[in-house]
Amino acid sequence: MNNYTSINDIDNINSWIADAKQIKANPLKDVRLGLNKTIGLLFFNSSLRTRLSTQKAALNLGMNPIVMNVSGDAWGIEFGDGTIMNGNTAEHIKEAAAVVSQYCDIIAVRAFPTLIDKAKDESELVLNAFKKYASVPIVNMESATGHPLQGLTDAITISEHSKKTRPKVVLSWAPHIKALPHAVANSFVQAMHKMDVEFVIANPIGYNLNKDITSNTPIIHNQTEAFKNADFVYAKNWSSYDDYGQILNTDPYWMITKEKLNTAKFMHCLPVRRNVVVEDAVLDSDSSIVIQQANNRTYAAQLVLKKILETL
Amino acid sequence: MNNYTSINDIDNINSWIADAKQIKANPLKDVRLGLNKTIGLLFFNSSLRTRLSTQKAALNLGMNPIVMNVSGDAWGIEFGDGTIMNGNTAEHIKEAAAVVSQYCDIIAVRAFPTLIDKAKDESELVLNAFKKYASVPIVNMESATGHPLQGLTDAITISEHSKKTRPKVVLSWAPHIKALPHAVANSFVQAMHKMDVEFVIANPIGYNLNKDITSNTPIIHNQTEAFKNADFVYAKNWSSYDDYGQILNTDPYWMITKEKLNTAKFMHCLPVRRNVVVEDAVLDSDSSIVIQQANNRTYAAQLVLKKILETL
Amino acid sequence: MNNYTSINDIDNINSWIADAKQIKANPLKDVRLGLNKTIGLLFFNSSLRTRLSTQKAALNLGMNPIVMNVSGDAWGIEFGDGTIMNGNTAEHIKEAAAVVSQYCDIIAVRAFPTLIDKAKDESELVLNAFKKYASVPIVNMESATGHPLQGLTDAITISEHSKKTRPKVVLSWAPHIKALPHAVANSFVQAMHKMDVEFVIANPIGYNLNKDITSNTPIIHNQTEAFKNADFVYAKNWSSYDDYGQILNTDPYWMITKEKLNTAKFMHCLPVRRNVVVEDAVLDSDSSIVIQQANNRTYAAQLVLKKILETL
Repeated sequence: MNNYTSINDIDNINSWIADAKQIKANPLKDVRLGLNKTIGLLFFNSSLRTRLSTQKAALNLGMNPIVMNVSGDAWGIEFGDGTIMNGNTAEHIKEAAAVVSQYCDIIAVRAFPTLIDKAKDESELVLNAFKKYASVPIVNMESATGHPLQGLTDAITISEHSKKTRPKVVLSWAPHIKALPHAVANSFVQAMHKMDVEFVIANPIGYNLNKDITSNTPIIHNQTEAFKNADFVYAKNWSSYDDYGQILNTDPYWMITKEKLNTAKFMHCLPVRRNVVVEDAVLDSDSSIVIQQANNRTYAAQLVLKKILETL
Repeated sequence: MNNYTSINDIDNINSWIADAKQIKANPLKDVRLGLNKTIGLLFFNSSLRTRLSTQKAALNLGMNPIVMNVSGDAWGIEFGDGTIMNGNTAEHIKEAAAVVSQYCDIIAVRAFPTLIDKAKDESELVLNAFKKYASVPIVNMESATGHPLQGLTDAITISEHSKKTRPKVVLSWAPHIKALPHAVANSFVQAMHKMDVEFVIANPIGYNLNKDITSNTPIIHNQTEAFKNADFVYAKNWSSYDDYGQILNTDPYWMITKEKLNTAKFMHCLPVRRNVVVEDAVLDSDSSIVIQQANNRTYAAQLVLKKILETL
Repeated sequence: MNNYTSINDIDNINSWIADAKQIKANPLKDVRLGLNKTIGLLFFNSSLRTRLSTQKAALNLGMNPIVMNVSGDAWGIEFGDGTIMNGNTAEHIKEAAAVVSQYCDIIAVRAFPTLIDKAKDESELVLNAFKKYASVPIVNMESATGHPLQGLTDAITISEHSKKTRPKVVLSWAPHIKALPHAVANSFVQAMHKMDVEFVIANPIGYNLNKDITSNTPIIHNQTEAFKNADFVYAKNWSSYDDYGQILNTDPYWMITKEKLNTAKFMHCLPVRRNVVVEDAVLDSDSSIVIQQANNRTYAAQLVLKKILETL
């Protein structure tokens, strides 16, 4: 595999899930595969799980992780073509990506959207610039429109916890005080489309995700109705896509409660705001599998890195 | 050993000191003990010695250290129970600690006190939350009320440099321009209580430490008198405990001088403000053992990590 | 070798270049040389190439790199002698350097000039304090007046790309919107003095570098004339040395263009501001060897670390 930047880079999700489970059963099996190989983790934004689990995955493969907070540690990076660089940016991505490629065998990048300029965000400016100008494989650690390490993690987690051949999975919007990206929701939708599940999305009016991504997935504006017979409820806030980046609704009615959840398992990518997105009673119960889900971040990342290392 | 969060976790200080000296004599003896084990160093506050020496200790044991500045690198963490998280904190310690436990075999935490809210500081909110919600051993890299890696270091250093069976050790308050925590002083007092030394504390009126910690230790408000026949003078500033977090005194009289020190050895945890806490003539003389003391930070940390690794 | 803080620490540049080329041909040959050795990379300023390439070099030698952003991660450091430290600095370099020496086998330091206080900058306050108070070898990762890892890199790169016995090399000042240090230019001049090249400097009136460093090098104020028959054009902005730290000229005429470059190879230490220092047409053409040059940063650093490790 060359890059892992989208759920669409997964050729066969069932085979990937099976591989990830094998890695999880024996995480150090390939501890010599990445020996003397270096992965550069470049963060344009904050990170806890991704930062730690990707390092852990690299270490399990014997790699050397080098972590850099781009803004704090290095220089402001310019992405425009033909720019006269007499402003705040000191280095063009053409040089930055090419240079980092010479010190690292794999580059992993986190770069959130603006949530202001839809066209810019959808162009995946930062991620695509790295793909274009780097000479080594690129891993997406959450970009403007996707978080495919999370989406793969979610697929693994559902497969592990499912007791049915074809479980019902609900992606439910939930309230939040800040305008959040669509990346996690998008990748989750794409992952579910690759799996044998009954999949529906629950969100308020005005909060439909990009319809090119949701495609034929039923979108239900009544949360209670959507949750009926659900086996998994995946909660996530996102800002409006149509009214791009806006907060149209903070109605606490949409918070996930123990009552509404019923017998379904509760999932969330974390960090999660307690008693805003979901009530304590859910997170503190056995219905919640958010910690197990976060644990799978390591094995999703490790599978991706392994597949890349095998082709280096 | 499960956690190392207080000097009280040391069962037999003489045996620990002996072990630390053996590690110091051959630091790479156990370089395979921690192979493929990861320690997460989580800093809520600045650090130089602790940051470097704990990494060095982990490397000497073959471990992989992962360092994270919590505030800058990740998300604001919530510690309150039942909080409706619609403010500045984005992730609850319940999730954060449980999640990090899945990527790291040991978690080490630095979290300073507020010096405003005594009850909150004494509850050791952050440290105890990690103990409660993490599923792996916790190491205290300086908490609100204790710095047990420093206290153990200090015990080792006194043992190394003592020429008497029962040396006289003085912990002396010294002036400072900022309100500082009690953690180092507290752990030093607790360590001295475990050793066979003649121990007294010298501090101005109004600066007595928590009497539950000082217990029966003589507290002398006359520095000259306290220093008589001292073999070791350990200087440290702390803010008032009774008038919590206040600076009541900046009298330069309390600065440690060569003259007052006489033949005693000078100790300090560092960083130290020269010519405020102690004059140059002390630090630049052979009476000062602060550098040797800082060196022992590695072996104190290595002993603690070794003891934890042996039980994993 | 004890320290590497200046191009003057290179005894025989041709032999060093030959060694660096051998390392580049087989970067992992000495992967056991630095086993269980630690290098501390201390950054007082931003860094991308130096940060990553020095880590990569250390890893290629089997060393453990520990990276610290001094200002953000640790304490404000005092450099003055005899200072009463009741201000913003919390730790004196005497302690800091001595302490870090106990955790790291080599210390590498980046500390930029003030560009305000010429005497202070030329005294190399920070770098020399580390040399004085550390007990382990010091590597200069760019100091107030020199960047010898870059200068060595540049020499290697010219040697690799030269098709003549004695190529003509031009160091050309170029415009920039910020006041920049002289360090890279100084080290490049010093490196060229050690090589068998025809070397000239092109800069506007008022921008002559320190004449103790440029020595007998021809300084030409007409860029076109200087570029005649050039094999290598090394572009770099610096602020005025005589009118210390001032920007006297931003004339775009001095920008490097494809036309002016003619058949010469283009070099720059990076980061470079496109269409200010040099036009896109140069950087995006085969005339530019800036990426190959950046790649050599790893091997220059690895050679330096290897030479130091061999004497530890």
